[in-house]
Amino acid sequence: MFVYEKKLQYPVRIKNPNPRLASYIISQYGGPNGELGASLRYLSQRFSMPYPELKGLLTDIGTEELGHLEMIGTIIYQLTRNLSMDEIKKSGFAPYFVDHTTGVYPVAASGAPWNAISMAVSGDMIADLNEDLAAEQKARAVYDNILRLSDDPDVTDVIRFLREREVVHFQRFGEGLRLATERLDQKNIYAFNPSFDK
Amino acid sequence: MFVYEKKLQYPVRIKNPNPRLASYIISQYGGPNGELGASLRYLSQRFSMPYPELKGLLTDIGTEELGHLEMIGTIIYQLTRNLSMDEIKKSGFAPYFVDHTTGVYPVAASGAPWNAISMAVSGDMIADLNEDLAAEQKARAVYDNILRLSDDPDVTDVIRFLREREVVHFQRFGEGLRLATERLDQKNIYAFNPSFDK
Amino acid sequence: MFVYEKKLQYPVRIKNPNPRLASYIISQYGGPNGELGASLRYLSQRFSMPYPELKGLLTDIGTEELGHLEMIGTIIYQLTRNLSMDEIKKSGFAPYFVDHTTGVYPVAASGAPWNAISMAVSGDMIADLNEDLAAEQKARAVYDNILRLSDDPDVTDVIRFLREREVVHFQRFGEGLRLATERLDQKNIYAFNPSFDK
Amino acid sequence: MFVYEKKLQYPVRIKNPNPRLASYIISQYGGPNGELGASLRYLSQRFSMPYPELKGLLTDIGTEELGHLEMIGTIIYQLTRNLSMDEIKKSGFAPYFVDHTTGVYPVAASGAPWNAISMAVSGDMIADLNEDLAAEQKARAVYDNILRLSDDPDVTDVIRFLREREVVHFQRFGEGLRLATERLDQKNIYAFNPSFDK
Amino acid sequence: MFVYEKKLQYPVRIKNPNPRLASYIISQYGGPNGELGASLRYLSQRFSMPYPELKGLLTDIGTEELGHLEMIGTIIYQLTRNLSMDEIKKSGFAPYFVDHTTGVYPVAASGAPWNAISMAVSGDMIADLNEDLAAEQKARAVYDNILRLSDDPDVTDVIRFLREREVVHFQRFGEGLRLATERLDQKNIYAFNPSFDK
Amino acid sequence: MFVYEKKLQYPVRIKNPNPRLASYIISQYGGPNGELGASLRYLSQRFSMPYPELKGLLTDIGTEELGHLEMIGTIIYQLTRNLSMDEIKKSGFAPYFVDHTTGVYPVAASGAPWNAISMAVSGDMIADLNEDLAAEQKARAVYDNILRLSDDPDVTDVIRFLREREVVHFQRFGEGLRLATERLDQKNIYAFNPSFDK
Repeated sequence: MFVYEKKLQYPVRIKNPNPRLASYIISQYGGPNGELGASLRYLSQRFSMPYPELKGLLTDIGTEELGHLEMIGTIIYQLTRNLSMDEIKKSGFAPYFVDHTTGVYPVAASGAPWNAISMAVSGDMIADLNEDLAAEQKARAVYDNILRLSDDPDVTDVIRFLREREVVHFQRFGEGLRLATERLDQKNIYAFNPSFDK
Repeated sequence: MFVYEKKLQYPVRIKNPNPRLASYIISQYGGPNGELGASLRYLSQRFSMPYPELKGLLTDIGTEELGHLEMIGTIIYQLTRNLSMDEIKKSGFAPYFVDHTTGVYPVAASGAPWNAISMAVSGDMIADLNEDLAAEQKARAVYDNILRLSDDPDVTDVIRFLREREVVHFQRFGEGLRLATERLDQKNIYAFNPSFDK
Repeated sequence: MFVYEKKLQYPVRIKNPNPRLASYIISQYGGPNGELGASLRYLSQRFSMPYPELKGLLTDIGTEELGHLEMIGTIIYQLTRNLSMDEIKKSGFAPYFVDHTTGVYPVAASGAPWNAISMAVSGDMIADLNEDLAAEQKARAVYDNILRLSDDPDVTDVIRFLREREVVHFQRFGEGLRLATERLDQKNIYAFNPSFDK
Repeated sequence: MFVYEKKLQYPVRIKNPNPRLASYIISQYGGPNGELGASLRYLSQRFSMPYPELKGLLTDIGTEELGHLEMIGTIIYQLTRNLSMDEIKKSGFAPYFVDHTTGVYPVAASGAPWNAISMAVSGDMIADLNEDLAAEQKARAVYDNILRLSDDPDVTDVIRFLREREVVHFQRFGEGLRLATERLDQKNIYAFNPSFDK
Repeated sequence: MFVYEKKLQYPVRIKNPNPRLASYIISQYGGPNGELGASLRYLSQRFSMPYPELKGLLTDIGTEELGHLEMIGTIIYQLTRNLSMDEIKKSGFAPYFVDHTTGVYPVAASGAPWNAISMAVSGDMIADLNEDLAAEQKARAVYDNILRLSDDPDVTDVIRFLREREVVHFQRFGEGLRLATERLDQKNIYAFNPSFDK
Repeated sequence: MFVYEKKLQYPVRIKNPNPRLASYIISQYGGPNGELGASLRYLSQRFSMPYPELKGLLTDIGTEELGHLEMIGTIIYQLTRNLSMDEIKKSGFAPYFVDHTTGVYPVAASGAPWNAISMAVSGDMIADLNEDLAAEQKARAVYDNILRLSDDPDVTDVIRFLREREVVHFQRFGEGLRLATERLDQKNIYAFNPSFDK
């Protein structure tokens, strides 16, 4: 089970509203490479992951990503506070506003709601860990693009922190994959799925 | 941020595998009325919820639902342990098995992956609380149907616990709605959205 | 069966084209809280609704919402008549125009096509009526946002009418829920589903 | 606007429950080639259809298809009345039952909820009428398959009626296309879109 | 099997970047009426198509459409080369950029990722050929709209070529349908499905 | 452009129909980890891939996967030839049959139509190659599961060939990733995206 601790993993204090920037960053809330997918991917994969170290790795990172989802939600919320209707109309935020006002909803920058097809749980240790390595790289690339689009230092500072965490997770999943392959039959690494075969 | 506590909110100890039953119960993992949607709905709505009591209510229940998601995942995992290929073929579990082996993936009993269109964040206090009341009733109805389908007392016991929690949440959201309406202009309850208007 | 009567429930006479406004209002045609979902939700739920008064209520409101869908389609049509290519390019309407020219297609303001996952038919009287109450509030909130975005009195007048109807439907569904609960066992309101149990 | 007339276009009186057959026929309620898509396609296309005869044709057939949707809903409802839990488990109906009990929900036989991407409104008269001809043929093919799967004469009789109507609609859309092409510039039939160009 | 030939069916040489135009044209890469759907529709339908001439027709056109998909991808690529961040922000391209940088991804102009529900394989010769006729007309209409939006002669020249090919395909599918109907029982053209019945 | 060569990459000669097995294997036609996604992922990513060796790698493998898609389609087609209605009803194939008869349509074993959200094009060389490594592992895991489900040696032989090709592709993408990282700034491997930065 999970316990909520009433603080963010890293502080978010944005002074100036910027609905346009919010409409880009929301892709890390509900886009195909965002924190919702990250968290749910890892917290779902852990059930069938065969070794305790890997189960623990997925639980740790999956739980941290829940906190990142909260941080992104906080960024969206702060960037859309106290908007005038004029700001909403001029910023390209209105299509989102119609259905969600300034609430935080899991959607990509493109407008497509989050869909679980964007993540995989294969029930195969090697495939799942490769999926996780790819997920971290895709999230890192999205953060790179947000850094290219942002000119607000309050936002950039938080995004840099989140991007750095993805790089750390990528390294940890790399170690996990090394551990996983070492435990498999060396002749044919995929001949046996320890999540299913006995 | 969230902290993981290594125990379930309520113990899950299922002795007998039953992939057919697992393929029904998975709807509470990734179906339109399930725990993933519940948790994400409340944890997303809280950003724009105007009053601290309501923000707290959504955080509390949303966090508890994360634990329910974990419980459902555990049920699926335990019901699909140590299956023979023969059991998989005879139980209707094979279409799921092809893509997920015995991993836990957020999908409805019908096979449709979870889609955020199944939940709403309107950024309007009254609309969001009505959405939440409906969500609890729909989840309760699904648990009722699972109870009709289950003949394993190990499963039924856990499902009864989860169903009961939905009823409690429904009551708490009812109190939240009462609190919310009391704070609004009495003449026209929807004339002012305290999440957005100032 | 249904009979078409060649007039709108309330007249729509918009003098000035405004494709940008059309691209917001279309969310009430094919968005997650729009009139298509409303109509189909009620007209689908009525089959399993157990009491004649509730079946009638769903049929009445579902049929009226079909007429609202027609009114929204008419608004979109009138707001996009006689556009120059220059107006289309400058108004943000071009992404829609590429695939639909100025035809009326069921899509949200965000660009996501209508998906039945946005509505529920639970086959449980209490859950369905709570779903309907939530649907009316969400539609009302979207109309509120359209009123915030519109500065054309020809449009605003029609939207006010439609918004008012949602409030009336909300009240009628509230009465329906009261009727439904009165007929159930008072000790445990959800112990018996009259749509299914005998 | 639409008026509900409390009778079916053609009577539906099914004596024996058959949830398996219901789970196939539901594709004509919410499948990609079903009556919901048919009705919504025509009732949406008519706004931009340039000539009154074609507008009228789409309104007529779209309204009739609403009545067919109702007939299919009635078939599903009657085929799933008074089921025992044993019948539900043995018939493959349980995955649907978990989320919808015996309510009628717009879903394909495959389990995929109805999605507006399955229909097109192009805002181009010729393209829309070709879309409609294709839609009628696809619906006809689905009815043919249902006739191959059904061995209940009460069901077969109604399906034959509905299939026949699709053939009639196909012919009427063929006449509509002839009328449409006759009014266009004969040298280059697609050089001018009377729905948009002036 | 397929062999790649390292040249385009028709040359694409665009001198000036134009991300806004790219964001419209991408609908022919991954939109509901685009070249991906065209190619996959025909290459999938051919398996069950009963007569060798029709199988060959689908293979030919399906293979050509793969080449058109490549041409559209090349247009997108050339229109988004060497962009400054300022151009990206001002052109409405940023929502796409966040998740895809300047990579080519199958999405509609509206932002919705390609979904196979937008195409049909009915396993019925007559229905499939009508589907194909409609598909060609819808693609032609989208090319017409792109021609209305484009003011770059380098782009317009290629789009005209692609549009012309759709018209040719429409005519060839028309001949295919004539051939198909001639081989069927003349009294009831749909009484027998040569793809399935023997 | 592509040229069709009228032979399969590896022969498919299945003697006995088996619609149940077909309904599992179809996940490699249109499932989230199947050959359609593989092919389209690589053929789309190549546009923005910066180095000719990597562009060539993606084109080669993407083109080969088109041939694998054809092989899977052929397997489905041969496994569903000459079925009696009785075989269709008893094998769980009927839900697919209703909408597609025995045509080949891109759908997962679960019934969900193929959706481009299941693949990524990030426009970032490192992220895309990690995505490709994951894709090959997921496809390999699905083939492993099909081998567990199949007891037809005619099928198993072809599936083994296809599985082996995924392992080869995984190795080639691994070499591609090595080449890609060697060309990047060694201090911070993600500081520079050669697909976008100049």
